[in-house]
Amino acid sequence: MATINANYDNLAPSYLFSEIGKRTKAFCSANPKAKVIKLGIGDTTQPLPPFIVDAMVDAAKRLGTIEGYKAFGHYGDEQGMTNLRNAIAAKYSERGVQIDASEVLVSDGAKSDLGNIQSIFGEDNNVAIQDPVYPAYLDVTAINGRSGELDKASGKYKRVFYMKCVPENNFSPEVPKSKADLIYLCSPNNPTGAVMNKSQLEKFVEHAQSTKSVIIFDAAYSAFITDKNLPRSIYEINGAKKCAIEVQSFSKSAGFTGLRLGWTVVPKDLECENAVPGRLNQLWNRRQTTFFNGASNIAQMAGLAALTPEGQAQCQQIVDYYQTNCQIIKKGLERTGLRTFGGENAPYIWARTPNNMSSWDFFDKLLNEANVVGTPGSGFGPSGEGFFRLSGFGFKEDTEEAVDRIKTRLHI
Amino acid sequence: MATINANYDNLAPSYLFSEIGKRTKAFCSANPKAKVIKLGIGDTTQPLPPFIVDAMVDAAKRLGTIEGYKAFGHYGDEQGMTNLRNAIAAKYSERGVQIDASEVLVSDGAKSDLGNIQSIFGEDNNVAIQDPVYPAYLDVTAINGRSGELDKASGKYKRVFYMKCVPENNFSPEVPKSKADLIYLCSPNNPTGAVMNKSQLEKFVEHAQSTKSVIIFDAAYSAFITDKNLPRSIYEINGAKKCAIEVQSFSKSAGFTGLRLGWTVVPKDLECENAVPGRLNQLWNRRQTTFFNGASNIAQMAGLAALTPEGQAQCQQIVDYYQTNCQIIKKGLERTGLRTFGGENAPYIWARTPNNMSSWDFFDKLLNEANVVGTPGSGFGPSGEGFFRLSGFGFKEDTEEAVDRIKTRLHI
Repeated sequence: MATINANYDNLAPSYLFSEIGKRTKAFCSANPKAKVIKLGIGDTTQPLPPFIVDAMVDAAKRLGTIEGYKAFGHYGDEQGMTNLRNAIAAKYSERGVQIDASEVLVSDGAKSDLGNIQSIFGEDNNVAIQDPVYPAYLDVTAINGRSGELDKASGKYKRVFYMKCVPENNFSPEVPKSKADLIYLCSPNNPTGAVMNKSQLEKFVEHAQSTKSVIIFDAAYSAFITDKNLPRSIYEINGAKKCAIEVQSFSKSAGFTGLRLGWTVVPKDLECENAVPGRLNQLWNRRQTTFFNGASNIAQMAGLAALTPEGQAQCQQIVDYYQTNCQIIKKGLERTGLRTFGGENAPYIWARTPNNMSSWDFFDKLLNEANVVGTPGSGFGPSGEGFFRLSGFGFKEDTEEAVDRIKTRLHI
Repeated sequence: MATINANYDNLAPSYLFSEIGKRTKAFCSANPKAKVIKLGIGDTTQPLPPFIVDAMVDAAKRLGTIEGYKAFGHYGDEQGMTNLRNAIAAKYSERGVQIDASEVLVSDGAKSDLGNIQSIFGEDNNVAIQDPVYPAYLDVTAINGRSGELDKASGKYKRVFYMKCVPENNFSPEVPKSKADLIYLCSPNNPTGAVMNKSQLEKFVEHAQSTKSVIIFDAAYSAFITDKNLPRSIYEINGAKKCAIEVQSFSKSAGFTGLRLGWTVVPKDLECENAVPGRLNQLWNRRQTTFFNGASNIAQMAGLAALTPEGQAQCQQIVDYYQTNCQIIKKGLERTGLRTFGGENAPYIWARTPNNMSSWDFFDKLLNEANVVGTPGSGFGPSGEGFFRLSGFGFKEDTEEAVDRIKTRLHI
């Protein structure tokens, strides 16, 4: 008789986005004339740039021809098209990082890889995450049987090490103090917008090397880093190839949230307790070739276009657009007296709620008084309580109006 | 310290396609003038039909506009677009099967779902598979920790139940005799081309209900069923919704091998030992929303086009083309005195090697004498020894020439 995977019972109920939806809906019903502006979500709004659209139109037409179908229409390598893997490796070398194309495995996006990567590690491996952080790391850890039970009092899983990220430590976590074998680092961080600098990352690389743990580095927001001294890839740190996996995405840098394309680098130098260099790269290759059949060919053709100089220039315009939104939000909030973080090298603004309000109380206040939807910080982990997140991914006009309303209507 | 998932060490080395490649390459080097024709692989050759190409061109252009991007360009539901889920449910109802759209989860293809579905079941659940069969079921079972050790003498995993499919039982397996909680059934079968009829499937549904096991029904080749009495979906069998999950694909029916689109039905009626109806559907929904971010939007738009009457008609032409190839192969092989199976309601022809030759010996003979590449049956499981597989997915001209050569050059 079949039974269910009991790990699913360990999952903390995820109320965040459904509760946001519920409260927003209730407000709209009660206030049908209010024009609610949503600045909560990390979803993109700007259309794909013309250079990428043209490449996709061309690819679609070619899929209707014998030659085109033969070239890229049918089963491709599960690891991705060779020229795309080469182009990604070349992008690293622009920053002085030498990655071999065989170390790059193309995927249908960072979310899939960040969860599936755990497949190559032992079930007894413990996980460390930043707190607050993108909730999916925890959920996949629980489903994969690596979380232990949820302690309801603290809201924390017993086997997971939470690395506190708060203003007092500049949102830069300390290395885990207890056994953590897989260390998720998200930089630029969702939701705090903090970026780890070189010396902060060096500490983690040293720690991982000395404890033979593996860092899973989520660099999905790296396109938003403007400060040239900040690392965009963990491989800018010496020794990182021996202890870090990097997960990347075209979602935010090129607007591929719906098109689905990303990649993961598993360096051949990477090692762990019972794996010689090369073995983890092989295992990830085996996992992907067994459970996955490659990213959509047309998304890969779009990705190739995005990595050309013309594609990069057009994508940068979109990133600039979102960054302008961030500046509008950040300055506006600061003018109302709210203390903000992030938003300069990341598409998220993280703000302290006024007067020690709880995240959800401030959510309601923002919705009621300014008709603006944000995301309560407590939804990203216990250390997010007392904060909220706004995103730069909206339309500029909406962003400006939302900020105007916050400035003029919010009573704090 | 991180350690690797030791289940990967349990994997039987997969030599099949690499060995085919190696032997083919060696032959070509030694015989540079020979024109080798590959009829081994299950990969598609016919370009996408114009109706689907037009839909994709239109979708790509719309992704470059604010309205289009807003409509379907950004993050969509992980479960798939509502209208696509509705269209898939409607396709079932054409065959008298009532599936609710909420039971249909769209994915990036059958291969992913056939492996990932195991996530919702307990690790102690045992697996049954047909022998011979598509090798990925076994590989995912091993990686997911459900195979037990590989017994090198028999080539079988100790915890897996192998359901023998041989001419003596018309390639229709008996129900598992020992504990099997998850039963993979592939019909039309890859590689034998056999389709399970209603009474055969009824036995499995009865067995699954009485043992509270779950059938994972791979119907990826159902578009090739021409016999109207054969079930195209397991849900044509009474009671199947209580005990079966169905995995489907656009790969072979519409040529989406590279575009990547499929779906899985987890009925709300489905139950197992510790899961009331609805729970398994919820768990699969949770798995997919946590580890996956939806199939590529442009692939989904192409899928929608494929399910319109015009799309269906154009896709059928491609299926017909491949079916004609199957007839050419089947008749040709029969004329040489080889005994063949399948190829009528499936895109694969399964043939007995002549004179009790081993699968690999016949592979070499076919390559040397006719310069045709097939797939040795032993690569699909122990009961595939003494057989080989040819596929109808080639170009018609190549197929005709290959068969001519087999008829005129092969010494048997």
